[in-house]
Amino acid sequence: MALIVQKYGGSSVATAERIKNVANRIAQTFDKGDQVIVVVSAMGDTTDDLIKLANQITSKPHPREMDVLVSTGELVSSALLTMALHEMGYPAISLSGAQAGIKTDSNFRRARVVKVDTERIQEELKKRQIVIVAGFQGTTEDMDVTTLGRGASDISAVALAAALKADVCARYTDTDGIYTADPRVVPDARRLTEIGYEEMLELATYGNKVMQPRAIELAELYHIPIMVASSFNDNPGTLIHGGVSMENRNKVRSVAFDMDVAKITVVGVPDRPGIAAAIFVPLAKAGISVDTIVQNASINKITDLTFTVTRDQMQDALKVIKPVAKQIGAKNVASDAKLGKVSIVGSGMQNTPGFAARMFATLSEKGVNIELISTSEIRITCIVDEEKVKDAVRALHQAFEVELG
Amino acid sequence: MALIVQKYGGSSVATAERIKNVANRIAQTFDKGDQVIVVVSAMGDTTDDLIKLANQITSKPHPREMDVLVSTGELVSSALLTMALHEMGYPAISLSGAQAGIKTDSNFRRARVVKVDTERIQEELKKRQIVIVAGFQGTTEDMDVTTLGRGASDISAVALAAALKADVCARYTDTDGIYTADPRVVPDARRLTEIGYEEMLELATYGNKVMQPRAIELAELYHIPIMVASSFNDNPGTLIHGGVSMENRNKVRSVAFDMDVAKITVVGVPDRPGIAAAIFVPLAKAGISVDTIVQNASINKITDLTFTVTRDQMQDALKVIKPVAKQIGAKNVASDAKLGKVSIVGSGMQNTPGFAARMFATLSEKGVNIELISTSEIRITCIVDEEKVKDAVRALHQAFEVELG
Repeated sequence: MALIVQKYGGSSVATAERIKNVANRIAQTFDKGDQVIVVVSAMGDTTDDLIKLANQITSKPHPREMDVLVSTGELVSSALLTMALHEMGYPAISLSGAQAGIKTDSNFRRARVVKVDTERIQEELKKRQIVIVAGFQGTTEDMDVTTLGRGASDISAVALAAALKADVCARYTDTDGIYTADPRVVPDARRLTEIGYEEMLELATYGNKVMQPRAIELAELYHIPIMVASSFNDNPGTLIHGGVSMENRNKVRSVAFDMDVAKITVVGVPDRPGIAAAIFVPLAKAGISVDTIVQNASINKITDLTFTVTRDQMQDALKVIKPVAKQIGAKNVASDAKLGKVSIVGSGMQNTPGFAARMFATLSEKGVNIELISTSEIRITCIVDEEKVKDAVRALHQAFEVELG
Repeated sequence: MALIVQKYGGSSVATAERIKNVANRIAQTFDKGDQVIVVVSAMGDTTDDLIKLANQITSKPHPREMDVLVSTGELVSSALLTMALHEMGYPAISLSGAQAGIKTDSNFRRARVVKVDTERIQEELKKRQIVIVAGFQGTTEDMDVTTLGRGASDISAVALAAALKADVCARYTDTDGIYTADPRVVPDARRLTEIGYEEMLELATYGNKVMQPRAIELAELYHIPIMVASSFNDNPGTLIHGGVSMENRNKVRSVAFDMDVAKITVVGVPDRPGIAAAIFVPLAKAGISVDTIVQNASINKITDLTFTVTRDQMQDALKVIKPVAKQIGAKNVASDAKLGKVSIVGSGMQNTPGFAARMFATLSEKGVNIELISTSEIRITCIVDEEKVKDAVRALHQAFEVELG
């Protein structure tokens, strides 16, 4: 008897019909004799609709109250899914994040799971119930409701899988796995049968929206294999796990892209110690998350400092940076919001030379100008004009023969 | 400094604009220096919409899961109302039924309040917070969410007022008080400035939908005066309380009516001991609530037994009654779903003869045939054809000069 955590995304439970379909899938697993815990997201656009409602009242909703508001979406879907299982004659019970014992810190809107008290879940499993848990939410020590950040039902699922020592965490959504590239951009992209945690984390951080990056980190930490598959078909999906096979050596595993890039350059900065801190400490204090940072080689002790932010944070970043630039004696501040990034990811790239050179050559052949470059041990990212991003993805997918596996 | 519990109904918080209006009213009370606890219903038709959603999944939703589902409506409105107060610069916090300490038995869908642990509310009041409580809900000892029955945010408000020893429970909705009759039927109906608990209970039970009957019983038990007023204007409203003034002697206070009446007659029943039990015990077991019961004088040990139920229960009642009728040797079972009831209520009627006679004469003059009669010490109810109900209300309002007060 295996203990299985399943998680269904918002599109999988967007309508009553789809909820019944999900109930069917759960029932099939239960019929095999396994213990089943299901984490469910809010139906379709519910969370967005609730946020819109709040915005009609105030432009600055209190985070605690936003969490009370948006956490109701998952309560609704958990109750409905439980009813659908009852209708089919299966024993099931819905639990809120609080009832499921998901304890978090009190950082409302983006709380972190501190621990999971599995007592109530264990009790229900002993009664042979299918346990349906409202995703995305937990409670503080004071029993105030918190949410774990956008897309964070993934985190609920992995945290429960870890606490319950589940055999697998199966994550169902409207995409049936992790692809070598977005199939909407690269028609011959191939679904991977497996991928390593680190590779997946790089992909998720650099534009693949299928999994929440924090959920992947958590899964890696607790060695929870995650099966990413579709709730709309029976395709085998992709297994995210720790022990990736030897076949993947010297290979690019997947090409990711992200259109949400803006670049800010502080031009003509006097190059002296403390300059980077002078620029980036105020940005951090303003809650602006800086991604790639590049500093040009200094000529006559004058340099340019370039960094990227998400597009929606560009204006805020400029407001912070302009007075700082003046203060440190920089010439001026330039910005460009029409950028994107394209990344190649693969653990086989580690300690293998030539990937970067081939990437740059490929982009050059296609006439794609590289604005910035950033790398990790298993990833190379180029920031390019947004209009060139999709061409770049297609060219790289072909050049590295990613579809061949 | 007074401690005031306010309750706002669903129509008062149906839109973002109305929520802001309610926030304004709360702020005015808070500005007077009073401690304010607010109980809020779900926005507009939210509860009905959630029930419809459940009905798309199953025709027999599990009561526990229905409570998880429908209790979300009040969480949403409580968070939004709190945000509206924040937007105006007022300190406020939303609490769920669980957080507000409302403990109930485990009769899902119609749970009864067992006790109220006011610790968290007291703590928030000490911090000078306006406390916004999600109405209609509580939790069992096992921390499962329960709801208190339709319209039961009134019960939440009175229970909190009782537990906190509030000075007054002010209940705001889209009607601005208790009238001598429904103003849509009797245009010159007058708003009462006050009414006794018992009178109000009779009115609520016999068709006046303004207050939930169980909330009135609870208010009487704990001596909580309830001010019923509108959230859309500043009219003074009606005070429901225990010490009604002497002026109301010999007076009918209000005329109520209810269209939701169906009559079932078991015809030709052999009149022997145990017959009533044989009929009514199975009905009670089937969860059918029987209202008025009349047994005709028996002729040759044969009698007719008539009772009323709500219209939606008539078919279920007939299913139960038909085999029973056969078994006890009754001739047949007749039914009529097109009935209504009209009631006159007034504590001044107690020990004062002549009210019943005048009521029957008035109806007779108007050509209204009386099907059944039931009375309490302070109420006389006649069941009549549904088409005659409104004429009857108008005639009685005039005959008893109710509008004169």
